[in-house]
Amino acid sequence: MTANDARHEAIRAAVLAILPETHSGEELRRFYDLLREYPRRSGKGIRGLATLLATEAHGAPWTHGLGAAAGLEAFQNWVLIHDDIEDDSDIRRGLPALHKKLGIPIALNIGDALHAYMWEYLLNLTFDHPCGRQILNEFVWIIHRTVEGQHLDLTWVEEGRFDIKEQDYLEMVYLKTACYTAIGPLRLGAWCAGLEPSWGFHEAGRLLGCAFQIRDDVLNLLPETTTGKEFAGDLYEAKRTLILAHLFAHASNRERQEIRDRLSRPRRERRAEDVDRILTLVNGYGSLHYAQEIAESLTREGLDKLRNSLPDPPDPSAFHRLESLFESVAIRSS
Amino acid sequence: MTANDARHEAIRAAVLAILPETHSGEELRRFYDLLREYPRRSGKGIRGLATLLATEAHGAPWTHGLGAAAGLEAFQNWVLIHDDIEDDSDIRRGLPALHKKLGIPIALNIGDALHAYMWEYLLNLTFDHPCGRQILNEFVWIIHRTVEGQHLDLTWVEEGRFDIKEQDYLEMVYLKTACYTAIGPLRLGAWCAGLEPSWGFHEAGRLLGCAFQIRDDVLNLLPETTTGKEFAGDLYEAKRTLILAHLFAHASNRERQEIRDRLSRPRRERRAEDVDRILTLVNGYGSLHYAQEIAESLTREGLDKLRNSLPDPPDPSAFHRLESLFESVAIRSS
Repeated sequence: MTANDARHEAIRAAVLAILPETHSGEELRRFYDLLREYPRRSGKGIRGLATLLATEAHGAPWTHGLGAAAGLEAFQNWVLIHDDIEDDSDIRRGLPALHKKLGIPIALNIGDALHAYMWEYLLNLTFDHPCGRQILNEFVWIIHRTVEGQHLDLTWVEEGRFDIKEQDYLEMVYLKTACYTAIGPLRLGAWCAGLEPSWGFHEAGRLLGCAFQIRDDVLNLLPETTTGKEFAGDLYEAKRTLILAHLFAHASNRERQEIRDRLSRPRRERRAEDVDRILTLVNGYGSLHYAQEIAESLTREGLDKLRNSLPDPPDPSAFHRLESLFESVAIRSS
Repeated sequence: MTANDARHEAIRAAVLAILPETHSGEELRRFYDLLREYPRRSGKGIRGLATLLATEAHGAPWTHGLGAAAGLEAFQNWVLIHDDIEDDSDIRRGLPALHKKLGIPIALNIGDALHAYMWEYLLNLTFDHPCGRQILNEFVWIIHRTVEGQHLDLTWVEEGRFDIKEQDYLEMVYLKTACYTAIGPLRLGAWCAGLEPSWGFHEAGRLLGCAFQIRDDVLNLLPETTTGKEFAGDLYEAKRTLILAHLFAHASNRERQEIRDRLSRPRRERRAEDVDRILTLVNGYGSLHYAQEIAESLTREGLDKLRNSLPDPPDPSAFHRLESLFESVAIRSS
């Protein structure tokens, strides 16, 4: 077991400990069990791990960051349940999405329950914490931004927008992904160590978080690397990604019209041949390659900013592992 | 303007003040505007008003209860957005349900945003409040119970349960309705006045809250009184109400089978003739009348318990208005 594995396991246990154990009534016992469904499925746990490493980098033991890390992973779990409904995704962490198992009504309600348990946990966690108020404020900020990014993402699909430019995309994923994936963990790590976060974390986290999302979009279109979701799900869901923005900017007028036609139908009317055809165009125009390059350049820039934000980290070894984590999730492994 | 009208208006303004004003970007400006859609539609505001009257009954000015009242109404708003999706309701407060206007994905996400704004508001409200921690705990308790009740309600429809007895129904609506409609306001009113709530509020609120829900179910099946929702929406949604439990307990085997058949189809396949036929049976067996009797007897019992819980209210006039409020929402007006 590596050092990161031990931390992953501790976060996972802490997330499950947020949830109620059992109920005297059979139906609510089943309900409590369903609350554990997504937290039990093993995710990458990147946000929690980043929070612990950021706590350590600031000189505190990682256990000081465990509460915030668990809170952030609990947040991720309820968001994923609701996201999967919103995107009508089929698969999550290698198993059917919750609403595919239980229907939208019950799954939606389970997401709400997890949301409330997250707040209960955070209230208890921060009650006596010297930086409790600041930690709560970070969570408020993270959730507001994530939901705003989600609104843009959904609206673009809903309104059939095909005019999304690279800059629009980056602003959307700053909100949807970077705030809770990178900026939040960096800032939470500082507060958990009792220190005020460096101002530079915002820009460093923005770059690293955007890089993470772009890499995630790339992996989604590589059959061998799609992890726990359906291959090319982003195309079935007609997600406006950097890849699609690049393709649209380079395709011919006729191809643009074709892409528009194939992606404008409702999700369940999109066929494998639509997706295959768009994949062919994506590969033909090098849009995947382009997106990967951007992810790597944002990562390099983000890591530079991160180092400048904390030039003299109290725990240089933990700081280095934090850098490696952000690097590993955005840089091509092969 | 009556005294209650002034309080209603103050709560409404306080709920809207929870939400962000404007955004520099056009799309998020529109998003912020959508957050106000349900809060702007005028609801009955019973929970907020009950909170204010309970605060006053405990001897504090009603303005001391305004924050908790607004928080409770904000809770009601996000819950209604999600409920309307879960029940696939058509109409809310006389206008199309939010997901009918915007689609499920965007409406669901707006509910999540309201949920987060509610917590942000409650954190600010309670930060310096002498009973801040207790007020937050009440909200945690209220939300957990409401979501549990919602789970039962949804599961019974989803699983095609026709064995729901009166006692099951009462346990479900205790969770789904009474906790946030009556128990919560009574207890919050005490804390807002800086006093520990009477233990009797739980049982009094349970009875009054259940009566409220039963009366609400009755009104739903009276064409002239359905307020802001579709007439007989509960039958279209196949809700397991006390009315249906009574009908099922009294109908012949053949009629039971017919009811089962007509209510087992998916919501959108239920026709006006299905609903008309069940309404005929409901009226034939006096199930509406029966439910109304139960609502009234629970109300009388609940008001007795309420008086015993606070035998010597610091503000008897406010206490009397609180009694009248609970009476008016469950007792037949004509």
